[in-house]
Amino acid sequence: MPVLSDVISALDTLWPRAWAQDWDAVGTVCGDPDAEVSRVLFAVDPVREIADEAVAVGADLLVTHHPLYLRGTSTVAADTFKGRVVHTLITNGVALHVAHTNADIADPGVSDALAAALDLRVTGPLAPDPADREGRRGLGRLCALDRPMTLAAFAEHAAARLPATAQGVRASGDPDRPVRTVAVSGGAGDSLFAEVRAAGADAYLTADLRHHPASEAREHAPVALLDAAHWATEWPWCQQAAAQLDAVSERRGWGLRTQVSHRVTDPWILHQPSPSPRVSHPAP
Amino acid sequence: MPVLSDVISALDTLWPRAWAQDWDAVGTVCGDPDAEVSRVLFAVDPVREIADEAVAVGADLLVTHHPLYLRGTSTVAADTFKGRVVHTLITNGVALHVAHTNADIADPGVSDALAAALDLRVTGPLAPDPADREGRRGLGRLCALDRPMTLAAFAEHAAARLPATAQGVRASGDPDRPVRTVAVSGGAGDSLFAEVRAAGADAYLTADLRHHPASEAREHAPVALLDAAHWATEWPWCQQAAAQLDAVSERRGWGLRTQVSHRVTDPWILHQPSPSPRVSHPAP
Amino acid sequence: MPVLSDVISALDTLWPRAWAQDWDAVGTVCGDPDAEVSRVLFAVDPVREIADEAVAVGADLLVTHHPLYLRGTSTVAADTFKGRVVHTLITNGVALHVAHTNADIADPGVSDALAAALDLRVTGPLAPDPADREGRRGLGRLCALDRPMTLAAFAEHAAARLPATAQGVRASGDPDRPVRTVAVSGGAGDSLFAEVRAAGADAYLTADLRHHPASEAREHAPVALLDAAHWATEWPWCQQAAAQLDAVSERRGWGLRTQVSHRVTDPWILHQPSPSPRVSHPAP
Amino acid sequence: MPVLSDVISALDTLWPRAWAQDWDAVGTVCGDPDAEVSRVLFAVDPVREIADEAVAVGADLLVTHHPLYLRGTSTVAADTFKGRVVHTLITNGVALHVAHTNADIADPGVSDALAAALDLRVTGPLAPDPADREGRRGLGRLCALDRPMTLAAFAEHAAARLPATAQGVRASGDPDRPVRTVAVSGGAGDSLFAEVRAAGADAYLTADLRHHPASEAREHAPVALLDAAHWATEWPWCQQAAAQLDAVSERRGWGLRTQVSHRVTDPWILHQPSPSPRVSHPAP
Amino acid sequence: MPVLSDVISALDTLWPRAWAQDWDAVGTVCGDPDAEVSRVLFAVDPVREIADEAVAVGADLLVTHHPLYLRGTSTVAADTFKGRVVHTLITNGVALHVAHTNADIADPGVSDALAAALDLRVTGPLAPDPADREGRRGLGRLCALDRPMTLAAFAEHAAARLPATAQGVRASGDPDRPVRTVAVSGGAGDSLFAEVRAAGADAYLTADLRHHPASEAREHAPVALLDAAHWATEWPWCQQAAAQLDAVSERRGWGLRTQVSHRVTDPWILHQPSPSPRVSHPAP
Amino acid sequence: MPVLSDVISALDTLWPRAWAQDWDAVGTVCGDPDAEVSRVLFAVDPVREIADEAVAVGADLLVTHHPLYLRGTSTVAADTFKGRVVHTLITNGVALHVAHTNADIADPGVSDALAAALDLRVTGPLAPDPADREGRRGLGRLCALDRPMTLAAFAEHAAARLPATAQGVRASGDPDRPVRTVAVSGGAGDSLFAEVRAAGADAYLTADLRHHPASEAREHAPVALLDAAHWATEWPWCQQAAAQLDAVSERRGWGLRTQVSHRVTDPWILHQPSPSPRVSHPAP
Repeated sequence: MPVLSDVISALDTLWPRAWAQDWDAVGTVCGDPDAEVSRVLFAVDPVREIADEAVAVGADLLVTHHPLYLRGTSTVAADTFKGRVVHTLITNGVALHVAHTNADIADPGVSDALAAALDLRVTGPLAPDPADREGRRGLGRLCALDRPMTLAAFAEHAAARLPATAQGVRASGDPDRPVRTVAVSGGAGDSLFAEVRAAGADAYLTADLRHHPASEAREHAPVALLDAAHWATEWPWCQQAAAQLDAVSERRGWGLRTQVSHRVTDPWILHQPSPSPRVSHPAP
Repeated sequence: MPVLSDVISALDTLWPRAWAQDWDAVGTVCGDPDAEVSRVLFAVDPVREIADEAVAVGADLLVTHHPLYLRGTSTVAADTFKGRVVHTLITNGVALHVAHTNADIADPGVSDALAAALDLRVTGPLAPDPADREGRRGLGRLCALDRPMTLAAFAEHAAARLPATAQGVRASGDPDRPVRTVAVSGGAGDSLFAEVRAAGADAYLTADLRHHPASEAREHAPVALLDAAHWATEWPWCQQAAAQLDAVSERRGWGLRTQVSHRVTDPWILHQPSPSPRVSHPAP
Repeated sequence: MPVLSDVISALDTLWPRAWAQDWDAVGTVCGDPDAEVSRVLFAVDPVREIADEAVAVGADLLVTHHPLYLRGTSTVAADTFKGRVVHTLITNGVALHVAHTNADIADPGVSDALAAALDLRVTGPLAPDPADREGRRGLGRLCALDRPMTLAAFAEHAAARLPATAQGVRASGDPDRPVRTVAVSGGAGDSLFAEVRAAGADAYLTADLRHHPASEAREHAPVALLDAAHWATEWPWCQQAAAQLDAVSERRGWGLRTQVSHRVTDPWILHQPSPSPRVSHPAP
Repeated sequence: MPVLSDVISALDTLWPRAWAQDWDAVGTVCGDPDAEVSRVLFAVDPVREIADEAVAVGADLLVTHHPLYLRGTSTVAADTFKGRVVHTLITNGVALHVAHTNADIADPGVSDALAAALDLRVTGPLAPDPADREGRRGLGRLCALDRPMTLAAFAEHAAARLPATAQGVRASGDPDRPVRTVAVSGGAGDSLFAEVRAAGADAYLTADLRHHPASEAREHAPVALLDAAHWATEWPWCQQAAAQLDAVSERRGWGLRTQVSHRVTDPWILHQPSPSPRVSHPAP
Repeated sequence: MPVLSDVISALDTLWPRAWAQDWDAVGTVCGDPDAEVSRVLFAVDPVREIADEAVAVGADLLVTHHPLYLRGTSTVAADTFKGRVVHTLITNGVALHVAHTNADIADPGVSDALAAALDLRVTGPLAPDPADREGRRGLGRLCALDRPMTLAAFAEHAAARLPATAQGVRASGDPDRPVRTVAVSGGAGDSLFAEVRAAGADAYLTADLRHHPASEAREHAPVALLDAAHWATEWPWCQQAAAQLDAVSERRGWGLRTQVSHRVTDPWILHQPSPSPRVSHPAP
Repeated sequence: MPVLSDVISALDTLWPRAWAQDWDAVGTVCGDPDAEVSRVLFAVDPVREIADEAVAVGADLLVTHHPLYLRGTSTVAADTFKGRVVHTLITNGVALHVAHTNADIADPGVSDALAAALDLRVTGPLAPDPADREGRRGLGRLCALDRPMTLAAFAEHAAARLPATAQGVRASGDPDRPVRTVAVSGGAGDSLFAEVRAAGADAYLTADLRHHPASEAREHAPVALLDAAHWATEWPWCQQAAAQLDAVSERRGWGLRTQVSHRVTDPWILHQPSPSPRVSHPAP
């Protein structure tokens, strides 16, 4: 049976820490390098209910996409919710490892899993990593649809294929406009509008778009926008990541048991439509 | 008939520029101080279709909540969409004036109009302006419901009372939890979570909440969250503002004609629910 | 007849925006890319009387050396003098384009025109642009006189050859010292003293030299200094630039009519000598 | 006979170092506190010829307005011109003391001496020091003329009353405009335009005005500008300062001999008018 | 029996966190607020051997003077020595609480314990906290000796009274100079030289003095310096702090058992004198 | 006989100023480039007693390792101790030249002299200068012992071989651990711990190590530490430097007389051991 440092080593090969953005905080958050590891749980968010689930299923290692401490801390005391997570994990012998922007940029990475969930064919990275001579790594993915759909049809398709959430999918643009090429970026994507425009994509699917960036992007160019739950755009990566670790485990005869949490950690659990949204653009 | 500088003077009395945040850019964006003003249009966003509407209705002055140039520019050339707005306005003799965070903080301000639209009773500012000895000005508003509702019922109420948008209202929290006190803040509200917790409000209704701030706020404390369209939370202010200018006009015998744009400038014009959002928290 | 974007394209070829210093603000300030252009006025300063002249002569485009907004603005309202210029131009359909440090560094550039006005033979740039492998572009120019003159004679020559201004030319150094090589830099030149010393020029002609830099430069090394009106050192570029655009127009059959403003925008319109300046260095 | 520290003490009482601006470097630059002082020379600039004059006249102390090292140095080696000054002074037992912005702000200060030289009646500081409750200290001075003059006449008056320099006085504004109130500021004055406008002065006399600040000031408001040699606007202070130290010396029975250098350290020693400056504003 | 949050509350009353310097990181580092506390260990350094001692003695809470994470961290993984400490503590149910500059500034504080160990009579703080109107709190302490000693005798006294370390005490100054007043500051004290000079103390005892600050302080003024082991100057505080918590425990009937670690965590465990240090100042 | 500029030129060839760290202040501090130089004194610190010694021995040039003004100054007045040094030197015609981090990094440099004093064989730089292709220059040196010693024996050896000081040598680590490789760095060395660990040295000898860096270095890795007097680690360089200048003088027939000051400028002149330092690590 491998020890934690063996498994971390394997994860660091899949998603090298040096690939993370400067502002990011990836890597191992807690855990003893010499502890044995037999069960690994993958999830998007290192929140309390996920930590509890890791304990409940007997995991030795929890791998999440989001950092627990994105900004440095000088305390892990259990009177904060993050410190409580640390206490729960250490007390129960569960390690925590984070693969965030290093997993975004990897090949395959978070947006590859998103594209696969949406049945899109990836043609390349949206913001290529200049350090990758082969041009495969980078943030976001440019994709092609095998058959064009209208924006309305593509929004319906996305809502059906992504993990179900209360908030669903919202879209901006002419509903009848044909969509042939789509840029996708798992998680908050409002820093990549310039790349989307430069790529000439018909639509951009991502999450956490706010009024001003979305509105300015629409004023600037005719690209359609689709905004899904942040969690839903990144959850497909958990399955892809678990499969990657399974392959390593098999190759090395580790016998790891991996599993993916199905707990929805999108905070929005209710959605209430406006009574009559269809008449939203009245004539002046 | 008043000239532009007279009307601007009146607006500056309602929402003094010195009340704006340091980073903000409020005041008159274009217009000739000596031009006569007979018709004034109010809107949330200074986008192209609103500029066109101002021209179409024969307005001499457009008052918006959002700045055109939040960050400084050295060009207003018409090959950018913002420069195009400037050209349209100047060529057609329409002035543009912005009241943004100075209108947020005013009494009455943007969140008073939001509270009124929601039938809430305001009990004070959420983040009081330390410069206001009377304790009435500030960002956001704390409010009471005359009768408690569950969170689910309050979400339905909010969706029904706010201007209709495609995206509707999403909520986070126990649907059956009773809501007696609500903090509201028109526009993007994720910088006021500490004040919401300090005030002990049962729920917080605002806009543009992203995954991480919302998720951390929920982990941190049991306050329920409601997220509406940014535009929808600020549009009620347009009517309030128009009424305030009407009162000034009447007092001074100006005979101004004011009107509020009903054009929805929320970028999200489609919403597609997930096929089965109700089962969003499955057992592991 | 070309439209504005055609002409701007030609100007950007002459003086690419990427050549401007980081702190500069060059390019098109106002104007509609689709408007037709038949008459172009060149001037040093985008001040109100130049804007009025552009309107009076029926120009569709005003090209100036100095930026209107060197630092960003969030308002072009006509209650500021710069906003008034914008209103005058847009209302009368006149575009404004700025070529500042990109025109300084170009080959030919502002200092080439200055050298030509002074009958000097250019031998190379004073501060070569490291990006130019041919070594022709850069700030300032090093020049040779065909026949040496004393400093006093060269000052007289400069005053006679530069556009006339009330302030004339002032000089520092031994009046009888022979001048064989001269560094010139159109506009404010006190940031280039190190380059002048390194080049070993006998004299440096520029503008806007203040007491401390000039005094320290004189203490540091025996180079003579000549200080002319800022406007006078840059105005020759207007004629050079107009001729460059004429050549483009002819090549493309555009039929543009170009002209250069002769209005002196140097602010100093009076000069009063001291009663007895000749005895300025009395014996101790 | 007093020692250096006694005299410095007296100077620090006249112009306390704490009154200097944050960026300034005032106080004693070199000298032994215990050395006896019998002769003191005052000058504007601590340049080599002034140091030589101090040695030649047998001064024990040189007091200048301008700092030798405004920015800090880690060397006073004599292979730089400033280090050479330090070596000359220390080798010959001459101390150097600087009173710069602390002398500007004092009452009486540099601009009082300038006003007196111009026969102007001081009515108060231009930029009052908020720390002075009596409202007498500050940068610059506001003054009244006993009889109004035209700007042209006032320029002629200024050139006649200020110490003679090769560059004389230049002016901006309508030559026939009557001047009743004048703001004056010894030395480079382009940071005080806002105060000049706020004071409503008819004219502003200072030094080292460059094209852009002067041009923008003229576009902004109708105030007339006069620009004299930096040295000439500060030299009158040397006589005032010497008289102040004479008074202290007499009171304490020190028997100091003070004198003021008449050496002109304005770098500009030649001025060459344009051949025909009168026709500088041709009709368009 | 109290729970952790009760005990922390008491510690925060003794040394309020708000009293810490801006750059400091004080408070609870790990621990569950609801865990019962019966035994508390005090120590200077949160290093591995101290954590092991806390486990060995059955402590529920470790209170140290030095922070574990002075700068923020995003990982407590056990492959770093600090993370190993966190794992050891959490796994064994030991909380860690830090009182650093808030304990320095308190009354009584770290330097009071140091003064008491040295038999000095405290007369006031060395750098008074401006927020304390009574003038008792602050960094360092000014002290008087009941009978003057020579510097040599005082150094011998200090070495005898402070906890024994391999490095002993070093001193700078005239060995025969009488010492009547002493400034003391527990820990690294080279930021308080200006206060020591202003107070006119005969000697300054602190730790971690480096060559340049010590040398410059000696050139600047005749104050004698004594430099002891950092650990030895702060260890007396542990006993003082334990006694303070004992008093609280008794008052509240908590029955806490407190103890102080006697483990020397000064890193220097060997000292080798120069063969002949007495002849260190030979005649030239 | 050479003049100062000749000798400085030679020193700049040995220790080019461009090799100094960005924050450093090296080069000539005072002196006349044309003065003749016949006698040169080398010392570590430019303090008053060293300046007096330079005068007493009739030196024309004093070369020190430490800068007089590491941070810039605007005054060399003799009422500060550094200004007094400048006055003493200039009045007596003694120049001062500083070779600090440029001498640290040179080959041979400060740490080569330190290694030689310790009888260590240098194998390369500790922190190689990336600009040196041959890999010989850099901060610190890696060394080998010809025969392994225990840490205790090596500490005794170091104390015996370094110039004698009151403080001697302190060490951290297992006294019986064999030492085969040593990193050395003259002066304060706590910025090079990472390089020491990377090099895998058994011990690190340097100066001015404070509690926190030393303690953390020991927690981090098993490298032993030795801390000597800052002055004692740099004094050997003075002899090496004097010999280098002698060689130049001989080559050029200058006939310079060089000498090294034996005055100990380590501020610590007393050392008092703890009564019983051997029992410093009691069992818990």
